[in-house]
Amino acid sequence: MTNAQTIFNAVGAEAVLTEQPDLRRYLTGLETSFGYVLSDKNGNTFYTDTRYLEGATAALKGTDIAVKKFEAPLENLLKGYKEVAVPLSRTTYPMYKRLEDANLKVVDSEKAFENAMIKKQPYELDFICKACEITDKSFGTLLTRIKEGMSENEVAAELEYLLRKNGASGTSFATIVAFGENSSVPHHETGVRKLKFGDIVLIDFGCKVGGYCSDCTRTFLFGDDKKHEEFKKAYAHVLKAHMLVKEKVTDGTTGSEADAIARGYLKEHGLDKYFTHSLGHGIGVNIHESPMLSPKSQSILKDGMVFSDEPGVYFEGDFGIRIEDTVTLSGGKVISLTDSNKNLTVL
Amino acid sequence: MTNAQTIFNAVGAEAVLTEQPDLRRYLTGLETSFGYVLSDKNGNTFYTDTRYLEGATAALKGTDIAVKKFEAPLENLLKGYKEVAVPLSRTTYPMYKRLEDANLKVVDSEKAFENAMIKKQPYELDFICKACEITDKSFGTLLTRIKEGMSENEVAAELEYLLRKNGASGTSFATIVAFGENSSVPHHETGVRKLKFGDIVLIDFGCKVGGYCSDCTRTFLFGDDKKHEEFKKAYAHVLKAHMLVKEKVTDGTTGSEADAIARGYLKEHGLDKYFTHSLGHGIGVNIHESPMLSPKSQSILKDGMVFSDEPGVYFEGDFGIRIEDTVTLSGGKVISLTDSNKNLTVL
Repeated sequence: MTNAQTIFNAVGAEAVLTEQPDLRRYLTGLETSFGYVLSDKNGNTFYTDTRYLEGATAALKGTDIAVKKFEAPLENLLKGYKEVAVPLSRTTYPMYKRLEDANLKVVDSEKAFENAMIKKQPYELDFICKACEITDKSFGTLLTRIKEGMSENEVAAELEYLLRKNGASGTSFATIVAFGENSSVPHHETGVRKLKFGDIVLIDFGCKVGGYCSDCTRTFLFGDDKKHEEFKKAYAHVLKAHMLVKEKVTDGTTGSEADAIARGYLKEHGLDKYFTHSLGHGIGVNIHESPMLSPKSQSILKDGMVFSDEPGVYFEGDFGIRIEDTVTLSGGKVISLTDSNKNLTVL
Repeated sequence: MTNAQTIFNAVGAEAVLTEQPDLRRYLTGLETSFGYVLSDKNGNTFYTDTRYLEGATAALKGTDIAVKKFEAPLENLLKGYKEVAVPLSRTTYPMYKRLEDANLKVVDSEKAFENAMIKKQPYELDFICKACEITDKSFGTLLTRIKEGMSENEVAAELEYLLRKNGASGTSFATIVAFGENSSVPHHETGVRKLKFGDIVLIDFGCKVGGYCSDCTRTFLFGDDKKHEEFKKAYAHVLKAHMLVKEKVTDGTTGSEADAIARGYLKEHGLDKYFTHSLGHGIGVNIHESPMLSPKSQSILKDGMVFSDEPGVYFEGDFGIRIEDTVTLSGGKVISLTDSNKNLTVL
């Protein structure tokens, strides 16, 4: 049974219409920039345009998803239905109105997608594991290639090249490389700052395999100018917070409890006010998806989920530290899928 | 005057609220994954979270955009207004309902954005020109590095590395590298197919500088096995169609007239049925934006607009050809911003 059929069964509406690129990817396994998947009791059809018809037809041969050319208007596909499900919070107001104007009762498919996508199937875990392996391998090689005078952009270029060479189809998001004081901006825009001896280096990156993401952050020193005692102390605490999460989270822990493990530890050491973001987020077809690991999250972490463990502290204008792995829960234990060395590296 | 003020004046509503990442980028000049820009008669404020506060505050210092920490719920920002403008076709149904429930009259800001963004300002053209220069330079170097046995993924890795090394902040979309029969799929997903002597190679790629995109496609032969007479004939026709568009389009040509220049020429040579997509699309902060150059487009092409000229023909299961440049109109003439060699290359 394909995901399209699973979603149709879970939604329980007369018809399920899906347009959003990530959900389309989940249903078809294909990367497309246009198309609709329509499921009803008779089966599933992927309607797309001529750019994708040949590729999609070949890829979906033998599955329960038929491929047809989309002929506007959309209303033609929906004739004869009284009800259609769409992911409501991702459906635009004009589209909603269009469905209403076509006398369709509009139902929400979102929860069905979230419930299905939050727990990874074996083939999804395989893709994520592969992406994480490439992430670790590429980072290891990158460390041997970082030289004084390189710009943040050049380091990002090297890293993205290695990810691609090692088999990734691309990055999961814009690679963040931050040198020195730039590391204090949690989501720094990689730029032209050149690497100097003694700089702190923060790299947040990930890649995609089969449409699935990895996510990893490492912070290290480029040479030890012996002026980094505060950094080293804070680093040890962030690492401890990161590891405590891995030790303590189990099947059934909530997102807010997980966040509190790291935040509570950092608080004991006076660092919680510098931990200015959430502990983590789910990872899959999207780099940010359910579950959320944050102070208010009610997500319940379960075996088979994949998420990030990424405590960080940021001292404005001075420096920042973030240590992040992509992890999964298996048999109630946290398994680290990215797992390159996290002990403080001095290049 | 910043773009935020221009949009506020053009919309003419009491308040303008903008959340969409590309529009937020247009208004703030910053790459962020969360935030709202709110404009009213008193000025403009960018509300974002702690990940971006420090960076945004520094970047927007001295402009007419203040930076503040966003505190949920959104309704707090909108207290005291009777009316708010949002880009309607990009506003989700739940968000629309939320605004309505807060007793706000919802107005559409979309046309104001489209009108402002369709004509590029000098600083925007500078970014696009720089992205196009990097595109050409990187492609030139790539041609010297393509070797028999490389996979599509490896060629994409090399190309993306060169784009980055030459100063791009990333790609404008997932690089398409298609060898041999894969070139017949207009939007082929780059994969593991290895390069053989005599292969047709189609590469569709682009990069970003300052948040602005370039877009370019080249098709060439990797060695001439003397079995490509049909390809060569078709190539000459696609190139002619491409060049005719550049010759004939002027300030005032409609998107459908531009499309008809290429489609009409290909029809004279029996190739129009293989030209299965539109001639082109606008390029800016987004890789696809207004104007559209397609059979039904009513866009009027004007000086200062930037768009693609990309006729292509596709013979299913056999081969495809696409020749694309990013161009602009200046003084009523088409100026090619990407402009690497388009005469048939045999490596």
